[in-house]
Amino acid sequence: MTELNNAHPDDAETYDPSASSLAGQVDASVMEELLSIRSSIDNIDATLVFLLAERFKATQKVGVLKATHKLPAGDPGREAAQIARLRRLAEEAHLDPAFAEKFLNFIISEVIRHHEAIAEDHQASAAKA
Amino acid sequence: MTELNNAHPDDAETYDPSASSLAGQVDASVMEELLSIRSSIDNIDATLVFLLAERFKATQKVGVLKATHKLPAGDPGREAAQIARLRRLAEEAHLDPAFAEKFLNFIISEVIRHHEAIAEDHQASAAKA
Repeated sequence: MTELNNAHPDDAETYDPSASSLAGQVDASVMEELLSIRSSIDNIDATLVFLLAERFKATQKVGVLKATHKLPAGDPGREAAQIARLRRLAEEAHLDPAFAEKFLNFIISEVIRHHEAIAEDHQASAAKA
Repeated sequence: MTELNNAHPDDAETYDPSASSLAGQVDASVMEELLSIRSSIDNIDATLVFLLAERFKATQKVGVLKATHKLPAGDPGREAAQIARLRRLAEEAHLDPAFAEKFLNFIISEVIRHHEAIAEDHQASAAKA
């Protein structure tokens, strides 16, 4: 029995890939095409979740390193370089570069929140020691 | 010569993976460890950009399908099912489920914006025809 099953015993069985507020309101052939595309989107979303989890594992390590050496949570020089690179990669991928930048900022603000929490924990432990 | 090179001739050469506002302020060994983790983050970020581009290709198809059949841009029944699934996958991946939900909402709001734009284009073309 996994932690997941303990936490949410029903979720795994209740996902309905054909859930839609449009059910019964569109032709069967249109719904079939829609569900086929959505099945690809679902696969991509699962990949995104596991990839984001891996990214946070990496930034968690950065957070510990920064807290240990009392370095600031943010690094503006690094962030500017990352944004310029991701905008360039987005153009190559035919993704809106402005969206790529917004996306990175969204992730970075979460990462900085984590880094600050790690630094606070670190200081609290140091104060106790 | 690619479109990318025409648009931003210098970007490809100017990315500095060691760009940091901390340069010169930390031990060489700490900086080395930081850059090693950041190199993995850079690889993950490139993957995320190309994966997001692929996701928008799929939702673009959904947008055209919805515009053609005059279906609404959003689908609350679908979104609720997606959110529940992604929260469950996030737990499995040890990613904060609340963050996974925020992330999906961030993506969905961009997708709905695209769908509305596609629907407007479609109506404008229909009006001209």
